[in-house]
Amino acid sequence: MHSSDKIVAFAGGVGGAKLAYGLYHTVPPENLTLIVNTGDDFEHLGLHISPDLDTVMYTLADLANPQTGWGVRAESWGMMSALTRYSGPSWFNLGDQDMATHLLRTLGLRQGHSLQWVTQDLCQRLAIRCAILPMSNQPIRTMVQTDDGELAFQHYFVEQRAQPIVTGLRFAGAESAELTPEVVAAIEQANLIIFCPSNPMLSIAPILAVPKLRSLIQASRAPKIGVSPIVGGQAIKGPAAKMMRELNLDVSPVGVARYLAEVVTVWVIDEADAVYALPLHELGWEVLVTATMMHQAADKIRLANEILAF
Amino acid sequence: MHSSDKIVAFAGGVGGAKLAYGLYHTVPPENLTLIVNTGDDFEHLGLHISPDLDTVMYTLADLANPQTGWGVRAESWGMMSALTRYSGPSWFNLGDQDMATHLLRTLGLRQGHSLQWVTQDLCQRLAIRCAILPMSNQPIRTMVQTDDGELAFQHYFVEQRAQPIVTGLRFAGAESAELTPEVVAAIEQANLIIFCPSNPMLSIAPILAVPKLRSLIQASRAPKIGVSPIVGGQAIKGPAAKMMRELNLDVSPVGVARYLAEVVTVWVIDEADAVYALPLHELGWEVLVTATMMHQAADKIRLANEILAF
Repeated sequence: MHSSDKIVAFAGGVGGAKLAYGLYHTVPPENLTLIVNTGDDFEHLGLHISPDLDTVMYTLADLANPQTGWGVRAESWGMMSALTRYSGPSWFNLGDQDMATHLLRTLGLRQGHSLQWVTQDLCQRLAIRCAILPMSNQPIRTMVQTDDGELAFQHYFVEQRAQPIVTGLRFAGAESAELTPEVVAAIEQANLIIFCPSNPMLSIAPILAVPKLRSLIQASRAPKIGVSPIVGGQAIKGPAAKMMRELNLDVSPVGVARYLAEVVTVWVIDEADAVYALPLHELGWEVLVTATMMHQAADKIRLANEILAF
Repeated sequence: MHSSDKIVAFAGGVGGAKLAYGLYHTVPPENLTLIVNTGDDFEHLGLHISPDLDTVMYTLADLANPQTGWGVRAESWGMMSALTRYSGPSWFNLGDQDMATHLLRTLGLRQGHSLQWVTQDLCQRLAIRCAILPMSNQPIRTMVQTDDGELAFQHYFVEQRAQPIVTGLRFAGAESAELTPEVVAAIEQANLIIFCPSNPMLSIAPILAVPKLRSLIQASRAPKIGVSPIVGGQAIKGPAAKMMRELNLDVSPVGVARYLAEVVTVWVIDEADAVYALPLHELGWEVLVTATMMHQAADKIRLANEILAF
């Protein structure tokens, strides 16, 4: 890689944000574009909430809660305590500092700005120097089909704690969503495309559901590197492994690779999964085996460096 | 007074809420209706904020901050600190617990409910047993005409700290506002009407600007008791005295009485102003001289009892 090379990384929430952090501290930020899942977005208490955009933004601004990976560090919960006093809806936790983000975003959208514009505005206010773009300005809402019926994502994920058995996914609104010129340009100009270790079904699939995005990636001659979020038969975080089992997918880097077969050319897998290097290679992928667990900032930067060096 | 007598009290913010608290703990709450100024209401960060309704509601729910008289006790300020980090508008302080009120109210209004409905809903959630009614469901906005031009109330009061010299007041939207059936019924059925010691110009005048309200009060045969918010030539709280001087009004109970001449039949003035009892009497008012400063809950209840006994 040269320092002038342009990099696009697709990311969901916590896992994606970790690698995004590593990239942000490894390459010149003006050459980095993060395209982030908005399938988890929802309206709550009249606020437009974009959990993955916020996680990436807080992580890059060094504001994220180091314990959870999401939310703001040293958060307080006064609003939630008052909401509970009102017997209001308390199933989704909104921190007090976090509220400022939701208020400013919702206000910007109500004033007629696009989600991309509002996101850029918030990032500028936090002095983030790379581009963070929502996958689309139009709403795409991940609907989780379960043995309990179809659930809006946050109801499945937060209210029901990802307990229902998943039978399928639907990305409501995807058919009428559009890519922004900025997303198109970033992918067309990219010298490297990275799929961060985010949930393939809940974070990457909704991004790929935006019309024309899949073919745009396929048309790119840049290497397309995926980092497996499944390590040692488990998801690093969240319900990915449980959901893969329920959808009869192989809970391994091979299962992930097959799920994202059309858009990834190189797989980065953990040393714990070295056994999958040969099968992946035989199925046509290049493979980098390394330590992919990102506990500390140094891990994130090291992994980013290894990916760029490869 | 009999315990079946129905009482209406008009109130603004802190001063009004103190007497409202006294009344609430003196008469059967189902016979008490508080009609509250909404001229201070405004939209901020996409939220509908009703400062006087909140002050009265928090006071009756025993949630008010005892130091300030407004806002919620043991409040935290995480949202404001994050808003400041965003370089967002920080001139108006919104506490974290307070935010839950603004979110629920704004959501209710967006869902098509009236301000009165939303207010009743919030009060029920806080187990408040008397009626708290906004003076109107339609927006009336107090505009302060100053040597600095016309300012929306909160910009005059909070952002400019009531510093500009006031030359007049305008209650924007009053001409198209309407009384609710509940406000009309409360006044028609009242056996006693009380004007709490709120700012005559900023809290009482906007209420009286609702079409038909003034004549409705005048038509009532109930005693109409006003409690002077001016004591010893000063406002108990806030800019009332400064504003009266600027508007060439006499900064005394007599000045207040003349300003509200058409709607009040009895004046309650402080012992410090006993000298005004005779002039007020000669001008045609009945007068009760007593201790009107309400520092403690006991003061509020005692004053309420004295008014009711008179």
